[in-house]
Amino acid sequence: MTRPLPWERDALKRAAAERAVSEVEDGMVLGLGSGSTAAFAVEALAARIAEGLRVVGIPTSETTAALARRLGVPLTSFAEHRRIDVAIDGADQVERRTLNLIKGLGGALLREKMVAGASDRMIVVIDETKLVDRLGGSTPLPVEIVSFGWQIVLDRLTASGCGPRLRLAGDRPFTTDGGNFIVDCAIAEIPHPAALEARLSAIIGVVESGLFLGLASKVVVGRSSGVEVIEP
Amino acid sequence: MTRPLPWERDALKRAAAERAVSEVEDGMVLGLGSGSTAAFAVEALAARIAEGLRVVGIPTSETTAALARRLGVPLTSFAEHRRIDVAIDGADQVERRTLNLIKGLGGALLREKMVAGASDRMIVVIDETKLVDRLGGSTPLPVEIVSFGWQIVLDRLTASGCGPRLRLAGDRPFTTDGGNFIVDCAIAEIPHPAALEARLSAIIGVVESGLFLGLASKVVVGRSSGVEVIEP
Repeated sequence: MTRPLPWERDALKRAAAERAVSEVEDGMVLGLGSGSTAAFAVEALAARIAEGLRVVGIPTSETTAALARRLGVPLTSFAEHRRIDVAIDGADQVERRTLNLIKGLGGALLREKMVAGASDRMIVVIDETKLVDRLGGSTPLPVEIVSFGWQIVLDRLTASGCGPRLRLAGDRPFTTDGGNFIVDCAIAEIPHPAALEARLSAIIGVVESGLFLGLASKVVVGRSSGVEVIEP
Repeated sequence: MTRPLPWERDALKRAAAERAVSEVEDGMVLGLGSGSTAAFAVEALAARIAEGLRVVGIPTSETTAALARRLGVPLTSFAEHRRIDVAIDGADQVERRTLNLIKGLGGALLREKMVAGASDRMIVVIDETKLVDRLGGSTPLPVEIVSFGWQIVLDRLTASGCGPRLRLAGDRPFTTDGGNFIVDCAIAEIPHPAALEARLSAIIGVVESGLFLGLASKVVVGRSSGVEVIEP
């Protein structure tokens, strides 16, 4: 496979995002993902809203909220709606056989996971470079941790087999919308993601890992040869 | 057993706190707990420091940090010390047989748990009213949760058998030092605390529960009849 160039990847992401948004129906409550691919989905949604579609969205980041407001996508919150019909979001890696995901490169994994967990369906939009046979390897696993005592949490992650690196923004720790830090864990391969997830959850100070297991109901892949839809 | 009156309880707490602090040795790094009993420990520590004891403490709350500063107890942080020799803290409930704890009524459970987990030894200081045969019952289990989408987390806690109530400060949600919310879960009895802890940890949006399992190495109980020390 020839790896697509960056501007080609944008075209693939846009095509996949439009395909995902075509499944949105009138009256739905949506989860609005974060990151470059999810932004294409918000744009595609805005175009349909301009044509008369009535939906509301719960954003997974302040960045997505700002984009939605600018494009005229009506926003809501969990205070108004506790159930989401469809969440549309990107991913850093998708395991083809299971549709398990790694997410969090964009720094919004906690809110993305909250929204995915509250959704009846989650449609994941990616370009073909994100599809893998097994999670891990070249893509680090982001883990959201509390800022108080983060040094201790890093020690514990190391002890549990991760190779953790605190994510920085300039010379300071990167801080999430919720005020937490993100650690990027180098993990060779993840043959047992559920066991890893349980091990990470049990570490005091770990808020959420970027493993999204059993949450995706459909994956839309933008390929040079066209859009592929994968369902379990 | 006659239940001690409030001012009698303070005397019991103070006696127990002084007993715990008598174990502190020169050069130690200490974890400084939060709440009324832990405050007596900070006072007892300050008295020993005035007599020449040299120690540093990592505080578990802004309140404790302020008290320590006022009384002249030198503070440090995980940036300087990743290992704590002894943490001294209170508890809302102590299970006599296991020394498992419920903590978090004071609102500092996450930092308290981080500090307890990083400590070689944890000495718990209580008055006799906190000692029980089994955790749960009259004392609710505090659970620290993320503020984004807290409504969803409450639904999930309900589904997992807790009777959750969002803790308020006036008419707004109580907010922890880390910017999270606290839910108080009514649970009849907790026969299998480790299983409950794993179930709660797996809920997206739960940061930490107030179950402290296998962390206490010694419990000092202030009784009307004197101070009792319980070790496993």
